[in-house]
Amino acid sequence: MPVNLAPPIAENLLPIAGVTIGIASAGIKKEGRKDVTLMLLAPNSRVAGVFTQNRFCAAPVIVAKKHLGKTAPRALIINTGNANAGTGDDGLARARAVCEALAALLPCSEPEILPFSTGVIMEPLPADKIIAALPAAIADCRADNWFAAANAIMTTDIVAKATSRQVTIAGKTISITGIAKGSGMIHPNMATMLGYVATDAVINQEALQSMVKHAADLSFNCITVDGDTSTNDSFMLIATGQAGNAEITDCNSADYLALADAITDLSRELAQAIVRDGEGATKFMSIVVEGGRDRDECRKIGYAIAHSPLVKTAFFASDPNLGRILAAIGYAGVTDLDVSTLQMYLGDVLVAENGGRAASYQEADGQRIMKQADITVRIVLNRGDADATLWTCDFSYDYVKINAEYRS
Amino acid sequence: MPVNLAPPIAENLLPIAGVTIGIASAGIKKEGRKDVTLMLLAPNSRVAGVFTQNRFCAAPVIVAKKHLGKTAPRALIINTGNANAGTGDDGLARARAVCEALAALLPCSEPEILPFSTGVIMEPLPADKIIAALPAAIADCRADNWFAAANAIMTTDIVAKATSRQVTIAGKTISITGIAKGSGMIHPNMATMLGYVATDAVINQEALQSMVKHAADLSFNCITVDGDTSTNDSFMLIATGQAGNAEITDCNSADYLALADAITDLSRELAQAIVRDGEGATKFMSIVVEGGRDRDECRKIGYAIAHSPLVKTAFFASDPNLGRILAAIGYAGVTDLDVSTLQMYLGDVLVAENGGRAASYQEADGQRIMKQADITVRIVLNRGDADATLWTCDFSYDYVKINAEYRS
Repeated sequence: MPVNLAPPIAENLLPIAGVTIGIASAGIKKEGRKDVTLMLLAPNSRVAGVFTQNRFCAAPVIVAKKHLGKTAPRALIINTGNANAGTGDDGLARARAVCEALAALLPCSEPEILPFSTGVIMEPLPADKIIAALPAAIADCRADNWFAAANAIMTTDIVAKATSRQVTIAGKTISITGIAKGSGMIHPNMATMLGYVATDAVINQEALQSMVKHAADLSFNCITVDGDTSTNDSFMLIATGQAGNAEITDCNSADYLALADAITDLSRELAQAIVRDGEGATKFMSIVVEGGRDRDECRKIGYAIAHSPLVKTAFFASDPNLGRILAAIGYAGVTDLDVSTLQMYLGDVLVAENGGRAASYQEADGQRIMKQADITVRIVLNRGDADATLWTCDFSYDYVKINAEYRS
Repeated sequence: MPVNLAPPIAENLLPIAGVTIGIASAGIKKEGRKDVTLMLLAPNSRVAGVFTQNRFCAAPVIVAKKHLGKTAPRALIINTGNANAGTGDDGLARARAVCEALAALLPCSEPEILPFSTGVIMEPLPADKIIAALPAAIADCRADNWFAAANAIMTTDIVAKATSRQVTIAGKTISITGIAKGSGMIHPNMATMLGYVATDAVINQEALQSMVKHAADLSFNCITVDGDTSTNDSFMLIATGQAGNAEITDCNSADYLALADAITDLSRELAQAIVRDGEGATKFMSIVVEGGRDRDECRKIGYAIAHSPLVKTAFFASDPNLGRILAAIGYAGVTDLDVSTLQMYLGDVLVAENGGRAASYQEADGQRIMKQADITVRIVLNRGDADATLWTCDFSYDYVKINAEYRS
């Protein structure tokens, strides 16, 4: 069950001027399931994105990256039930067929469409079914469909992820709304994770591209469920330019930073929601690594802890088996690490220092922390000023069950 | 349950001239459990070893490495139930106390003793209990105790691991016997894995050191259960020098190669037995990566597959979810990999090529292979002559159960 994660409230999601959303059922996996989501963007909208770094990236990722480099998008089309990944040239043709059909209906040119798919890999995309559902999706388009979209893009997610922010920039109110999906296979470089954040701010393409990378690095690229990086991950940042603010062009300006902060904060909430809804999750863990020489070594150590099945099963059992965390630190690949000078905290409890258990540590204190649903593990390396925070969840019977039974 | 793994037969284990073994109960975790194993080596025996690369290496590892660099060992003392890891300076003092007590009893000097521990980490080693059990272990020493030793060093292992070989070198019969333990936390660079192989061959220290590294690289360093690398892993190769062969000194000689082959083959059997007895294992998987530019990239891809929880749960479910394997190949970190030119086989069935599912592939063929207990996944990269083979097991409910409940 999701860990301290409430579903979004539809009324709290702000419409974004220039974005309308339509939902439809293509019957890709199940008859009647809302599995197609269409986002229409007003003219002069800008889109920037980051994509999976998996070499086996899916056909829609290849097409979306190519289209994004060519022209300003007018529409995003997202299907669940089939990832169109590991499908070779035929998969590319099917992704393009969906784009072509949508372009003819809107009308616009094919490169103005960005396609996204999530679901089973290595199965042919039922493009005909998706194309047949496009008119219904277009007919459904309206500004207050964010909640429906958050639900329509879910796969093994239990709870929909959507949230909004408002920020005032030079006297203008800027709105931001985002949705995301993804529960297993979540890992740094963007794993079976789809995220769409839209704002009405006026911002140029370069600044927008910088902002999406900044936001991803501090949100979606800081989470992991099982260490697997998917073929389809995509995080899109849309700016419709209808808020009337002076165009943001300088990445060091106060306006840029105010917007970047709000978008990063919103993205972090979505990313953490993905972990809270991780497959089979019963615990939400924040792994904080401080005092490192650089961010890279802090992340290495954080991921070694976050990916260790032994650590994750111990958290599932609420067992303060601290040695497993120390062992993970030890094999993280920071070769000159002096383990005798670091401290480890579980919540506010100092549990290890001087290469072993802290003299003050009582198992009862560790157990008190481990019984909580939200747990912070903090490692203080005492060798520099860098830090990194990652979020992950535990490994439960249900993780195995969900992943052993998915597809069947 | 162990996958196609029969327990060793005591009578088939060859005594090694110059090695006697004694077993005792120290009551470290449970009253009456055989938890102390003593190996006594005849004078002029040589020992070479490889140890964990975990920065949090355990106290006994630190002591054993130091002692091994000083003098020829006369005894190895192994306890289960407590790993004496993450125990700081106090742990070092306790490991040395055991060595000192044993040295006084034998008698010999303290550096002639190599200590080994396996079990729970971050708990103080009950050195007094071990020391109290030493006289019983000494009294029990005899040449035909290999089977008892294989059982005494087990922790979460279900089946004992022990095997023997004989090889003829320049007319002399050389005997080799080895034992090993370890089921979870098994990973390349030697994880909660203890292995002891002894031979009566005459071989000098340099050649022996080369041989233990060669054997480890092709056996214990090719297995993984959960990707965790332990604090205590040690693999020791003992040569008592009593077989009467001409001393082996040249690593390119026929004698060296014959002995190295036999020892590597025996080590591989022990290493594979560890995987077959992996925590909760129901499948044994050989991951073969061929046609790579170098062995390193083949191993990277192999480990990405072998460590993926999504792949491992799919194997548990006997589900030919091939996309999960392709996704793992894609994120293995071989950045210039062209996924459209590789082939993937499940057993003898070609399942993927040209970036997607092979035209000839039938799901029924994949399912036939996935239902077997021993499964080979073969990836042909078609970009060079290098290859690597790894062995791993699946991820089951029982893996979570064992690791969530261990300690309690």
